Amino acid sequence: MPSPAPRGSVTLVLGGARSGKSRFAEGLVTASGLERVYVATAQAFDDEMRARIAAHRDSRGGAWRTVDAPRDLAAAIDAEATENHAVIVDCLTLWLSNALLADADIEHEAGLLLEALVRARGPVVLVSNEVGSGIVPDNALARAFRDHQGRLNQRVAAIADRVTLVVAGLPLDLKLPKEPS
Amino acid sequence: MPSPAPRGSVTLVLGGARSGKSRFAEGLVTASGLERVYVATAQAFDDEMRARIAAHRDSRGGAWRTVDAPRDLAAAIDAEATENHAVIVDCLTLWLSNALLADADIEHEAGLLLEALVRARGPVVLVSNEVGSGIVPDNALARAFRDHQGRLNQRVAAIADRVTLVVAGLPLDLKLPKEPS
Amino acid sequence: MPSPAPRGSVTLVLGGARSGKSRFAEGLVTASGLERVYVATAQAFDDEMRARIAAHRDSRGGAWRTVDAPRDLAAAIDAEATENHAVIVDCLTLWLSNALLADADIEHEAGLLLEALVRARGPVVLVSNEVGSGIVPDNALARAFRDHQGRLNQRVAAIADRVTLVVAGLPLDLKLPKEPS
Repeated sequence: MPSPAPRGSVTLVLGGARSGKSRFAEGLVTASGLERVYVATAQAFDDEMRARIAAHRDSRGGAWRTVDAPRDLAAAIDAEATENHAVIVDCLTLWLSNALLADADIEHEAGLLLEALVRARGPVVLVSNEVGSGIVPDNALARAFRDHQGRLNQRVAAIADRVTLVVAGLPLDLKLPKEPS
Repeated sequence: MPSPAPRGSVTLVLGGARSGKSRFAEGLVTASGLERVYVATAQAFDDEMRARIAAHRDSRGGAWRTVDAPRDLAAAIDAEATENHAVIVDCLTLWLSNALLADADIEHEAGLLLEALVRARGPVVLVSNEVGSGIVPDNALARAFRDHQGRLNQRVAAIADRVTLVVAGLPLDLKLPKEPS
Repeated sequence: MPSPAPRGSVTLVLGGARSGKSRFAEGLVTASGLERVYVATAQAFDDEMRARIAAHRDSRGGAWRTVDAPRDLAAAIDAEATENHAVIVDCLTLWLSNALLADADIEHEAGLLLEALVRARGPVVLVSNEVGSGIVPDNALARAFRDHQGRLNQRVAAIADRVTLVVAGLPLDLKLPKEPS
């Protein structure tokens, strides 16, 4: 089983669709023994999305407090990643999608997010999608999206203490915290 | 070279298109030294598919017995994964595609498959595609397919003794059998 | 940081879009301490492509000599991968795209490329995309492209001394050079 995420640490969990990345990330937060906060970035625009959100919420059970943060992730992390709390952000891909729909300055907002992560006093586990390993998409919007997603994943990975790729529910560590000496 | 798959063991070989996953899986079965059975799930609906199937069959050579099982994989595994036989299932992605086209209850049929794998008396090596690491597909059917594929890969991976991701023909082990003590 | 690529060695750096694969590859070449040659395979057909090429060139800085080789990569490698030079080829995916647009015999041209790599007297680091881990593309051309890309990656990986997959800027070694004894 996953080892607990220590206080103030940042973990990035990457994976494809239905790779088991959310469940793995939830396991990290649960193992921390801290109060669990679920920062949800999903916005339900249609029934398919509503069904996915409800299914996710049901599978988590009642031990989580859920906070909705479709746009201002930095503020949510500042408010929730306090001592005695462990936070999951699920997921950066929907947050990016929301920001693009709002025509936001992605690089700027990503910078605010990184600053909040560095400030966090409790562990934060961020879930994000790997979307760049298929064929080049036909339309320019999809290409722009995967470029933004790739850059965002790189920036978060660069400051994260741990980065794990999940494939078929199994973790593959790409970066591990340095051993305490 | 790959080490042989022991009797009764279940191995899942994952990879993208043209990643070399089938060849790697065939190497595992060949290294077992047992009689080789190729369980083919492909159904040829058009010339492109027929050409792929023929090319695969030619590349295997004559040392394999081929069994077609486009739909009832559990029965094929029960019949073929016997002592002295090593079985490859190539591949779960086409089997899933066939099941969806037949409007089958995927979760139920996946459950039957898992039960057959647990019952198997000879080694079974299953090949499956990683399809969830590209951009979100435009159409709902493609999204449903990759959700089913992701869930199926997770379920098989959970019971498998070994799970290997193949990238550019090179294996990356995600799960390894426990050492005999 | 990445260890330097030794003389005459061939390194394949794989990754999805915006995975950080080019930057990682450039780090390998820079660490060699040799004169750096950037073999660019991009052809600018439109403004989006021109902007990408210019951004890449700016991010490299002035320490690189750039050679354009959209089609005849084997000749460029023969000319540039000499003693005291370290070469990056960025990238095989654009080269493959150019070759397909020119209706070339891909298998033959890939063979010429492999022969040039084996002849190289200075280190060559090749960047290539992983494009086969998304859903099956709708159109036959995209399917043919990813088949060609997968086969090309396998062929180069088979002769490479080192193969590294880059995810979110982080390297995952799939193949490492044998230790000198």
